[in-house]
Amino acid sequence: MTNTIRAEVVTIGDEILFGQITDTNTAWLGTELTNIGIRIVRKSSVGDQADAILQILHEAHQRADVIILTGGLGPTKDDITKKTLCTYFGVDLVRNETALALVTGFFEKRGREMTDLNRGQADLPANATYIQNDWGTAPGMWFEHDGCVYVSLPGVPFEMKHLMSNRILPKLREHFKTPIIKHKMIRTVGIGESFLAERIEAWEDALPEPIKLAYLPSFGGVKLRLTTTGDNDALLDQQLAEQVEKVLPLIEKNVYGYDDDELEVVVGRLLKDKQLTLGIAESCTGGYVSSQITKVPGSSAYFWGSIVSYSNAIKVNQLGVEPATLEQFGAVSEETIRQMAEGVRKALGTNVGIATSGIAGPDGGTPEKPVGTIWIACATDQRTVARLLRLGQYRDQNIQLTSTYVLNMLREELLN
Amino acid sequence: MTNTIRAEVVTIGDEILFGQITDTNTAWLGTELTNIGIRIVRKSSVGDQADAILQILHEAHQRADVIILTGGLGPTKDDITKKTLCTYFGVDLVRNETALALVTGFFEKRGREMTDLNRGQADLPANATYIQNDWGTAPGMWFEHDGCVYVSLPGVPFEMKHLMSNRILPKLREHFKTPIIKHKMIRTVGIGESFLAERIEAWEDALPEPIKLAYLPSFGGVKLRLTTTGDNDALLDQQLAEQVEKVLPLIEKNVYGYDDDELEVVVGRLLKDKQLTLGIAESCTGGYVSSQITKVPGSSAYFWGSIVSYSNAIKVNQLGVEPATLEQFGAVSEETIRQMAEGVRKALGTNVGIATSGIAGPDGGTPEKPVGTIWIACATDQRTVARLLRLGQYRDQNIQLTSTYVLNMLREELLN
Repeated sequence: MTNTIRAEVVTIGDEILFGQITDTNTAWLGTELTNIGIRIVRKSSVGDQADAILQILHEAHQRADVIILTGGLGPTKDDITKKTLCTYFGVDLVRNETALALVTGFFEKRGREMTDLNRGQADLPANATYIQNDWGTAPGMWFEHDGCVYVSLPGVPFEMKHLMSNRILPKLREHFKTPIIKHKMIRTVGIGESFLAERIEAWEDALPEPIKLAYLPSFGGVKLRLTTTGDNDALLDQQLAEQVEKVLPLIEKNVYGYDDDELEVVVGRLLKDKQLTLGIAESCTGGYVSSQITKVPGSSAYFWGSIVSYSNAIKVNQLGVEPATLEQFGAVSEETIRQMAEGVRKALGTNVGIATSGIAGPDGGTPEKPVGTIWIACATDQRTVARLLRLGQYRDQNIQLTSTYVLNMLREELLN
Repeated sequence: MTNTIRAEVVTIGDEILFGQITDTNTAWLGTELTNIGIRIVRKSSVGDQADAILQILHEAHQRADVIILTGGLGPTKDDITKKTLCTYFGVDLVRNETALALVTGFFEKRGREMTDLNRGQADLPANATYIQNDWGTAPGMWFEHDGCVYVSLPGVPFEMKHLMSNRILPKLREHFKTPIIKHKMIRTVGIGESFLAERIEAWEDALPEPIKLAYLPSFGGVKLRLTTTGDNDALLDQQLAEQVEKVLPLIEKNVYGYDDDELEVVVGRLLKDKQLTLGIAESCTGGYVSSQITKVPGSSAYFWGSIVSYSNAIKVNQLGVEPATLEQFGAVSEETIRQMAEGVRKALGTNVGIATSGIAGPDGGTPEKPVGTIWIACATDQRTVARLLRLGQYRDQNIQLTSTYVLNMLREELLN
């Protein structure tokens, strides 16, 4: 495309460079800008130093039509974005009365006293268009300079996201006339990246221009992302849908959803459609599976509750596992996991019960049951299925993978 | 410092630019490089396009002594890092027999068939020093070229981390003689950034060179990071400790830990020291508080289990909440939360019980109890305390903040 709008995202802050915080803003910005047909060509993080910020501004200006800056707008001394933008644009810092009224109102509403540092948040570079932040005291700012749009936003994720969604994205749409970029994501589970690639190679090689394919591996699954670009929204959707239809027969068993459909969303939808309720018994996952299920809004329609049974006493008293079973086979065994899944179903009175029990690590492994030995099970009114996972030595990874596998087991049982 | 070693981190992959995955690698790399005294000056992400990769390599070479590249080493067609490095260095791709043996062994051990795509993972640019990846089939690579070190690593987080920790960081330490950079982090909860800044202003203004302070706000807390640099490890530690000692009296009530001490780690340590056991009753947090507690290795020493009671039936049957209380005051009330905290303590037989119940959103709010109305409680053998939180409208944020507040309430009760 000749008239593609090119964007760069620049994150400002020592805390990101030094690794004290993980940057989640730019992933979100990437999705949102892509969705309105603006192509991100680079993302950068620089520290809270004026020369580093000036350098990236000059560089990005060579490559991009729009530059989104986040961070460095806090009230404290280490935040220097506004001063540096003044240097870059050759303007002064000027108090903005609209911004000041907002900051003052913010503090009055909360009955808190305002400091000089807070008042300083209403000072903006003279050439800034003030963009109101409804969720905090740091301002949003829009600049047009030398053929390029500059947007400066606070780094606090929910403030940044609200400013973007409600003020900046509509303004960008209005300012630029952009070609459309469309994505279609196919979500798979239970097949590795290279096996998936082999299986769909002929289809991939035959993809017509300008459709591109990317493999996005993550814990326990690989996402296939198809991308295309053009001017006709409906036609692009249709072209992507045709490709999905072609590839689906090759990988149908492994596909659990599309686009934003996380596994916990898909499982929730199945439970809701079938009017079934879910109870969970968690040992080694310690509440993680439940937190995945309940991060979905509206999950109370099908999720009733969980029993996290770290201690064996809870496995016996709350889940009804036989003490003799624990004695003979141990907590990490097929016998125990079956009783846990069936037990939670009975104890909580739900239609379906799922369960996890294993050695997440780093301690607790034995030669017979090393770290990563984990049982999962799913009990319905029809049957109980159990499966042994042999995972690795990392606690976080074991917990996340176990969650993916037990939710996928639940999905398969619901489809049976 | 004149001889500071400057590093740039470059992430390669359309999936990061387009926002399909959140980059957690570079935060980790930032911490690790900083810890061995290498200063990150910039992080960048570029797409899977040869010209974009070549451009950032040329730019980074001007600014940095070491360039760490991650990603683009997968077996599939969209991964072009190795080919592009060949273009950049002016060399050919050559099959590395050591790498091939490792890839072959990897597949044999798993009893899986190897494909041509997999074999291609053993092809390296001719000037690469091969760095063995024990956890996957993508190679690590080290290059020295025109006064600069280039390191290329797979983007899969656990493979990248292992290669860095075991092979690359020791090699970088050996290759460069670096000044030491030291950080000390003070973790606070329950005080906003600007109030904290006002309270410690005089101390901050008097900080001696080269000590720097940064404010790192996150959910429910602000971290203060002191940074210094020099040659004498013990002296730097002492200088930072002196500053901590000076500032502590100003903010003592709000400090819960230092450096990597997450709130759940601090709480776990207190429980362990006092030989107390914990049970959790979660309604609106849906398992999240338990998953925070159990992500700490060794948490089974003090955490016995949880009851996640999304349905009222579970509040009554498993936690012993009076039906009349639910009827009269509702699930989100001081009366119910007290019975939940006391009930879980009794049901699971633990010394301490904590509980959450509220309206996480986006649905379920009423004029009297809008979204964000959340009760928390902590019950010990001494007393039960309860507190009402008035949070915002975002589900994720409400769940995370509630977890922070209830864990901090537990911390305060344990210190009483």
